[in-house]
Amino acid sequence: MRDYQYEIEEPIAALATPWGESAIAVIRTSGKNVYRLMCGIFRFSKKNLALDEAEGHTLHYGKIVDPVSNEAVDEVLLALYRKPASYTGEDSIEIFCHGSLPVITRILKLLKSVGFRPAQPGEFTLRAFLNGKLDLTRAEAVNELIRSKSDKARSLALDRLSGTVEKRITDIKLRLANILSGVEVRIDYPDEDIEGDIVTEKQLDTIGKELEMLISSFNTGKLFQEGVTVVLAGRTNAGKSTLFNLLLREERSIVSEYHGTTRDYIEGNISIAGIPVRIFDTAGLRDSADPIEAEGVKRAERVIENADLILYLVDCAEGLTEEDNEFIKNYGSGKKLIKIWNKIDTIHGKGEQTVSAPAGFIPLSSETGEGLAELIAAVKRIIISGTSVKSGEPVIDSLRQKELLEKCLGSFINFRGGIKRGDPLDVIAVDLQESVHSLGEITGEVTSQDILNNIFSNFCVGK
Amino acid sequence: MRDYQYEIEEPIAALATPWGESAIAVIRTSGKNVYRLMCGIFRFSKKNLALDEAEGHTLHYGKIVDPVSNEAVDEVLLALYRKPASYTGEDSIEIFCHGSLPVITRILKLLKSVGFRPAQPGEFTLRAFLNGKLDLTRAEAVNELIRSKSDKARSLALDRLSGTVEKRITDIKLRLANILSGVEVRIDYPDEDIEGDIVTEKQLDTIGKELEMLISSFNTGKLFQEGVTVVLAGRTNAGKSTLFNLLLREERSIVSEYHGTTRDYIEGNISIAGIPVRIFDTAGLRDSADPIEAEGVKRAERVIENADLILYLVDCAEGLTEEDNEFIKNYGSGKKLIKIWNKIDTIHGKGEQTVSAPAGFIPLSSETGEGLAELIAAVKRIIISGTSVKSGEPVIDSLRQKELLEKCLGSFINFRGGIKRGDPLDVIAVDLQESVHSLGEITGEVTSQDILNNIFSNFCVGK
Repeated sequence: MRDYQYEIEEPIAALATPWGESAIAVIRTSGKNVYRLMCGIFRFSKKNLALDEAEGHTLHYGKIVDPVSNEAVDEVLLALYRKPASYTGEDSIEIFCHGSLPVITRILKLLKSVGFRPAQPGEFTLRAFLNGKLDLTRAEAVNELIRSKSDKARSLALDRLSGTVEKRITDIKLRLANILSGVEVRIDYPDEDIEGDIVTEKQLDTIGKELEMLISSFNTGKLFQEGVTVVLAGRTNAGKSTLFNLLLREERSIVSEYHGTTRDYIEGNISIAGIPVRIFDTAGLRDSADPIEAEGVKRAERVIENADLILYLVDCAEGLTEEDNEFIKNYGSGKKLIKIWNKIDTIHGKGEQTVSAPAGFIPLSSETGEGLAELIAAVKRIIISGTSVKSGEPVIDSLRQKELLEKCLGSFINFRGGIKRGDPLDVIAVDLQESVHSLGEITGEVTSQDILNNIFSNFCVGK
Repeated sequence: MRDYQYEIEEPIAALATPWGESAIAVIRTSGKNVYRLMCGIFRFSKKNLALDEAEGHTLHYGKIVDPVSNEAVDEVLLALYRKPASYTGEDSIEIFCHGSLPVITRILKLLKSVGFRPAQPGEFTLRAFLNGKLDLTRAEAVNELIRSKSDKARSLALDRLSGTVEKRITDIKLRLANILSGVEVRIDYPDEDIEGDIVTEKQLDTIGKELEMLISSFNTGKLFQEGVTVVLAGRTNAGKSTLFNLLLREERSIVSEYHGTTRDYIEGNISIAGIPVRIFDTAGLRDSADPIEAEGVKRAERVIENADLILYLVDCAEGLTEEDNEFIKNYGSGKKLIKIWNKIDTIHGKGEQTVSAPAGFIPLSSETGEGLAELIAAVKRIIISGTSVKSGEPVIDSLRQKELLEKCLGSFINFRGGIKRGDPLDVIAVDLQESVHSLGEITGEVTSQDILNNIFSNFCVGK
């Protein structure tokens, strides 16, 4: 891994949009001399303007030109940013070129030839952090926002990006630091009789609770970010695939209406109550006793084992069989399982207007969608039972932050124990210092090179 | 298909970058009232500025906000363009947001809710055409540039985008129109004795040649755009897969160095002499007489049948077998085939310093790369034999343009025949008019709605 520290102003470049054909691609650059370097390969189309003199936050039309052959490579727009009013806090230029693979490849080659180094993953955001544009919780939120899998995860990440976690951490740290001052004054002036308690029980309770809430918010953050796995099970022709398509169709309409292609869309992802839900259809896998399918059945069983929730479908025209009862008995105790009385439309067809599903079954027609709202409500109840987001409270989604909070809480508990026992002030001061230090690591006031490398290497290139 | 004509100023929006997680995504909008509509969902971060008053070609930091819930959706940059100084010629705003799927989805939904319609494929470029920013040859070049598969195809498309085809067509059309004026003057004033010929043979020859050159450039354009198919063949262990990897590795280094992932990279594409080369490795498919592999062998044979060039590898340690000779005899006559004497490194290893390959074989070590340059030169000679690009001459890559040029040439030839035969002027004038009209269709002066729909529906969304 590179040692970032020594290269902070080196000019870097990277493709910031996905590698693929599209209307527009964005190539991002940042560092010292980016304006001078870009002059080597950019020609304004009409203006008699020097790139070096152009103002920040402006857009300029022109051509990228190979300085050796003088060949035009693409017609582009440059977006100019001037230090410190840029994402990285350095001079920065973005190239908006045609989203053509040869164009992107050629421009990246040219940038390298005139002195830009390919950026490491997360290097732009690392620079933003090192230049004081963001603390570490907000820098991590950038990546969490990009990687978010549901609208709720997006919203929580955006809150963090706007500083909610940073603010809360800084606030707790200030209170701990105040207590620490009180302790240190008493250590430094042991003979003075300083009035009042160092801190009240109530103040300590509040701090402890806030730390615990932040720690436990991690599970919620992870749930919204990583979501749950739902598997469809049932005998052949119970309507699993129809339900699968029904659940997916609703989710996709808006997106596909806009981008007109589903080729990059991962099969089976929807979102319920803001939680990403990955749906597996085990259709066909349990349908045969053929020994060749043994591996297939094993795989289906593994998916079911790992699922957070099973939707078990029964064809109401067929009724409950021995096989159904066995499955429900096997999985129904340990696992979360929703039983579905499917194909109620076929009963309507036969003139039966009221559907009497067995107790505990949700009546559904995966064909017509009747009963879908009730099913989704039932799924929702089960999957949000693991969450506890108080509106407006910060929610973390970083294992690093969680572990540092736990370390902070550990030292803080030691400190409280020390006070209670009446331990010497210089002993309890150490615990309190550690507590404050852990919080400083979260926001990045005190962070080692290794940890920075670790955090930013998980980022996208170009961010 | 929509009828575009009536909707030219309607506000439209589309994702202009690929659908996928990345540092940045770009959402493009254009039309009447885009500034007013965008005010509904955009808040400046600090400035006391009205979006409506902001200048074109400037960038502005702020938030996209859901106007109903007042919830922040993302922190974004807006790029503003003012009519007519925009891609479409209309007022236009681009949103640079985080490349997060929930962010993109949410912003597209919001845009729809405040009155933007999802853009059709190519609708931005269609508007650019309808607003007189581009003629049709340049509009088509936008799509050809994005879809280009090699650097040479990129370069030819960029030439067209800068107007080389338009210029040539317009130039020929002007000369034809001049001749037509001469004819029509003589029709209108039959009694006047107008001096000189209507046109000289030499002038007509030149026009004919220029039309023919443009038509034949289509094959070259297609070659650079679509490339050729090369298949690796040979007995088991002839070193096919090693050569396959050797050919691909060289090509990939720069790109993967930058974007750090090959997940979207299509296997087997390289570029030789600017021509995209799709390489197929038939390893394993001809290795067994097992009846189960019959389908596999059939597929390999189909690939070989459809290939433009076969690279046939022989392991020099094994020497030529009956099987090799048979293959070479079968395919060597009808197909282009390069014979390779592979694994020469193994002979070096045994102390033999000079490799004596059989006549017509290229000695190669797919292990060490020795002989690769000679092989690539041989491939290059064969694949560029189909091209005839004179540097600086326009090269077309549109079947539509080619067919209209052929129509133009057909009428032009009729016209010349008429002159030679001394046909009545009003008869030959018709041929000449048709010739001029065909060229007008190429640049889009006279083009029906259907044809426009056809052209632009092949575009990316967002372009």
